[in-house]
Amino acid sequence: MARIGYVGLGVMGGGVARRLLEAGHEVTGYNRTRSKAEPLIADGMRFAESPREAAEQTDVIFSMVTNTQALTAITHGPDGILAGLGPGKVYVDMSTVSPGASRGLAERVAECGAVMLDAPVSGSVITLEQGKLSVIVGGDREAFDRVVPILRDIGPTVTYVGGNGQAVLMKIATNLSLAVQMLAFSEGVLLAEKGGISREDAVNVLTNSAIASPMVKYRGPFVLEMPEEAWFDCNMMQKDMVLALDLGRELDVPLPTTAASNEILTAARGMGLDHHDFAVMFDVLAYLSGLAATAR
Amino acid sequence: MARIGYVGLGVMGGGVARRLLEAGHEVTGYNRTRSKAEPLIADGMRFAESPREAAEQTDVIFSMVTNTQALTAITHGPDGILAGLGPGKVYVDMSTVSPGASRGLAERVAECGAVMLDAPVSGSVITLEQGKLSVIVGGDREAFDRVVPILRDIGPTVTYVGGNGQAVLMKIATNLSLAVQMLAFSEGVLLAEKGGISREDAVNVLTNSAIASPMVKYRGPFVLEMPEEAWFDCNMMQKDMVLALDLGRELDVPLPTTAASNEILTAARGMGLDHHDFAVMFDVLAYLSGLAATAR
Amino acid sequence: MARIGYVGLGVMGGGVARRLLEAGHEVTGYNRTRSKAEPLIADGMRFAESPREAAEQTDVIFSMVTNTQALTAITHGPDGILAGLGPGKVYVDMSTVSPGASRGLAERVAECGAVMLDAPVSGSVITLEQGKLSVIVGGDREAFDRVVPILRDIGPTVTYVGGNGQAVLMKIATNLSLAVQMLAFSEGVLLAEKGGISREDAVNVLTNSAIASPMVKYRGPFVLEMPEEAWFDCNMMQKDMVLALDLGRELDVPLPTTAASNEILTAARGMGLDHHDFAVMFDVLAYLSGLAATAR
Amino acid sequence: MARIGYVGLGVMGGGVARRLLEAGHEVTGYNRTRSKAEPLIADGMRFAESPREAAEQTDVIFSMVTNTQALTAITHGPDGILAGLGPGKVYVDMSTVSPGASRGLAERVAECGAVMLDAPVSGSVITLEQGKLSVIVGGDREAFDRVVPILRDIGPTVTYVGGNGQAVLMKIATNLSLAVQMLAFSEGVLLAEKGGISREDAVNVLTNSAIASPMVKYRGPFVLEMPEEAWFDCNMMQKDMVLALDLGRELDVPLPTTAASNEILTAARGMGLDHHDFAVMFDVLAYLSGLAATAR
Repeated sequence: MARIGYVGLGVMGGGVARRLLEAGHEVTGYNRTRSKAEPLIADGMRFAESPREAAEQTDVIFSMVTNTQALTAITHGPDGILAGLGPGKVYVDMSTVSPGASRGLAERVAECGAVMLDAPVSGSVITLEQGKLSVIVGGDREAFDRVVPILRDIGPTVTYVGGNGQAVLMKIATNLSLAVQMLAFSEGVLLAEKGGISREDAVNVLTNSAIASPMVKYRGPFVLEMPEEAWFDCNMMQKDMVLALDLGRELDVPLPTTAASNEILTAARGMGLDHHDFAVMFDVLAYLSGLAATAR
Repeated sequence: MARIGYVGLGVMGGGVARRLLEAGHEVTGYNRTRSKAEPLIADGMRFAESPREAAEQTDVIFSMVTNTQALTAITHGPDGILAGLGPGKVYVDMSTVSPGASRGLAERVAECGAVMLDAPVSGSVITLEQGKLSVIVGGDREAFDRVVPILRDIGPTVTYVGGNGQAVLMKIATNLSLAVQMLAFSEGVLLAEKGGISREDAVNVLTNSAIASPMVKYRGPFVLEMPEEAWFDCNMMQKDMVLALDLGRELDVPLPTTAASNEILTAARGMGLDHHDFAVMFDVLAYLSGLAATAR
Repeated sequence: MARIGYVGLGVMGGGVARRLLEAGHEVTGYNRTRSKAEPLIADGMRFAESPREAAEQTDVIFSMVTNTQALTAITHGPDGILAGLGPGKVYVDMSTVSPGASRGLAERVAECGAVMLDAPVSGSVITLEQGKLSVIVGGDREAFDRVVPILRDIGPTVTYVGGNGQAVLMKIATNLSLAVQMLAFSEGVLLAEKGGISREDAVNVLTNSAIASPMVKYRGPFVLEMPEEAWFDCNMMQKDMVLALDLGRELDVPLPTTAASNEILTAARGMGLDHHDFAVMFDVLAYLSGLAATAR
Repeated sequence: MARIGYVGLGVMGGGVARRLLEAGHEVTGYNRTRSKAEPLIADGMRFAESPREAAEQTDVIFSMVTNTQALTAITHGPDGILAGLGPGKVYVDMSTVSPGASRGLAERVAECGAVMLDAPVSGSVITLEQGKLSVIVGGDREAFDRVVPILRDIGPTVTYVGGNGQAVLMKIATNLSLAVQMLAFSEGVLLAEKGGISREDAVNVLTNSAIASPMVKYRGPFVLEMPEEAWFDCNMMQKDMVLALDLGRELDVPLPTTAASNEILTAARGMGLDHHDFAVMFDVLAYLSGLAATAR
């Protein structure tokens, strides 16, 4: 069993940390708001006073935060992860940031004598709890081979896709379909509903059809009743869409459905709905169709 | 076991007829091109000389053709299905046509003293062979109850969604996501590829992720190698998109991703690719990105 | 001066008829609702009891109605224009219908021994009053040469673009830009407004910039205050967009901005705004941005 | 007459500097590549050795460069404009950068004791030569009043739109329509052409119709023959579209036509056409329609 550091214990990050604890690893975790870490501490996690400490006292350090700015906050400065890294350590960042930002950080990690991997996860909290999370990994192959047993404790499917930044690229390339599929699903539900089929029946048929991806299956029913706490809110979703659109321009790939869906996320913000799960894209379209919003 | 008529023995229709034969029903089938019916005849299907004959000699008559025009051709005129219908018979049309066209035909069927149901299937030839086809049904509830055991011989999931035309509406509302999901998938693959990940790896990750609907799972790999025979070509796919867009205008539901995807299907036609499976939407985007097309 | 028949005396048609009267022609007009014709009758127009009579008693017959259905109503049947046509007569239809519908009607006209031209006008009521209307003409060249002096009395710019149906095609190809330009204009106004510039100032700058087409100049200010009576309402505008989109599919031309704009027109209908001038597309976007609608 | 500094003597910037010279002002200009300044030097412009010198020796300093990076290059550092500013001086930046970047620079200018205005121009080289350029101005009202006579020497229409950054905002809000109008125009031309009307005739009708903005009038004919040197290439155009899309997200304004058009600019880059005038968007669509590209 390994000595593992974990920085960023939000809903998803905390869930991953818990799986590592349950797998028998010695976990030293850090979170800006300590209270969120209490349940994990109760179950045996050591609490570090800073990201630096979490990195200093362990061999493999994980982090999962919401964006580049947050990533800089936990890695840089006197209390940052970088200050705690050194030869022999592997730093695994699971955040979804731009490939360029990830590569830049990997260079800083290399300067400390350590090795960085980018390893964003694909899937929801539920997928995680079911032990079905998929992990995509980019970076040094040797370091990957060293930590792959730990990654398998997080989720059974671990795929190596290339050098630093390639895993976040693959994650972004995946996530654009989340918003697009949700919007197309909403178009279908509203068409059916306006044509006289109940919203419930439409959701039921669609979530059992050839277009029912795992995401459609768990998020589709949100158009009947929105979860109290967003699984992935419009701002988070749009962050990923913008990463995709920026890459599309950088790499010269037109992204017609991504672009169209992103504007609906902007509309959700204009309508004051951005803190809801991005399934609320449905409500934007419902409004434009003269239909009632989701129960929320 | 029932005496069943079946008009329209194409790839999908023929597959459904075979399942009915295998379930032990007495099937009388008709197809414009008789040669396509030979394998079924060899396995015990009676061949009718006209749609009318198929309807006259059986109690429950099925049909599955590609569009409204073809549906009119097999139902109207002295040799059409309508001429062979009468009291006590149930006519089940599995074609994807507009709800309006379906309702119009149902009225003509009622004038003959028979009852019509619209029962389009959702899924591919593979889903059918696996016995996992999903059937959605609209029309008279009593008639539905009468034929539901036969429908279960076709696929295990049979859902009643309301009056005449409601099932084709639901089918159209489902199918719009096929093209949209395929296009979003293509955007993701191309983004990954241009960023340095092999097309194979990108397809592999995406078809095992949260966005992998059954359709994405079986059609996604087509961007590596296009099937020799289209499962569902661009013209067929666009027919369904246009049905959706027409309904969107009729029912006042804006369909942003459907509209955007439909234009890429038009581009596929402009580029001379329309007879390929609609997965060839990938090639339109690949060209615009300066990348090679799919092997085909 | 010529003996001219005129069928369809709506806002635009009535304006054209008035110009013909003012140019000294002998005009025999027909309108379904006679009351709308009263001002013209007061100014010397003869009123025909039917489209047929208007055609029988004149040499050159004009018509301008809103769609294919209305065109069929005034041309077919015992009281229709076709019944009043004969050798030597020229029938000029100024309606915007599909090229196919126009060509079909031209064939029927030819069977009567007469000749048909399609001659839709481009411009608004104001352009007409200013005598600046532009007329595009399709059909037989000889017939065109015969009526061109009369067309010049309607508007100074008369352009011959080819055989039957070509002029309506050109009109449709022009009109798609009306909705697209209006929507792009609205995007600009809202961006400026949300950034702190008053709506008035934004409209003022834009209507005096490089993007200020004649349409933007006269319709742009509508986003400050909507005209009481629509110049061209959402339903009319969408009719033309759908003609364009249908042609795009038929001729294999992808129309990305037309498709995107058309969905906003659908949304206008979903929001119950369709009877307003199509400048109300602004309001759809304003709502999505959390801003107030146009004064109306 | 005023002592004027001018930094950035490209096609547009050089043209503005020439007008200032011709109006009798004493102009001290700087350009990274001195050779481009030779014609102006021959006509009486003094050449400064650095942006700083141009600022030091004059009272009102203008600049016009292509993006934020270039603006930073000419303003910051020991040889930058900021180093040459001081109390009493007015700095007028005519570049199109983000409102935020413009406001940030204005703060730095204020720290130097000087005042900055943002004053992007709307129009092309031709508009400039015709003396019809429109100038939009943001920033301190008093400074505006001081320099407005000089601005009128550049173009007759000078509009004050508010505080710092508001003029570039208004410029961006205008420019998004350039690409959208060009794409909608292309859709119309291709529809007409595929329907049998010559490309020349289609361009002719459209550039004389209600949708013919000044931009459509001068750029429309580019689809017949592309200018050897781009007036405004795809990269420049896309820079402005991205500024608009970034603002749309920041200010919560959905921009459906901007987003759709931007993807076609990306496609132009993917097809290797980005260094052409952005009228080459036509060629992207022509390719997708199976038609020949513009002569170039």
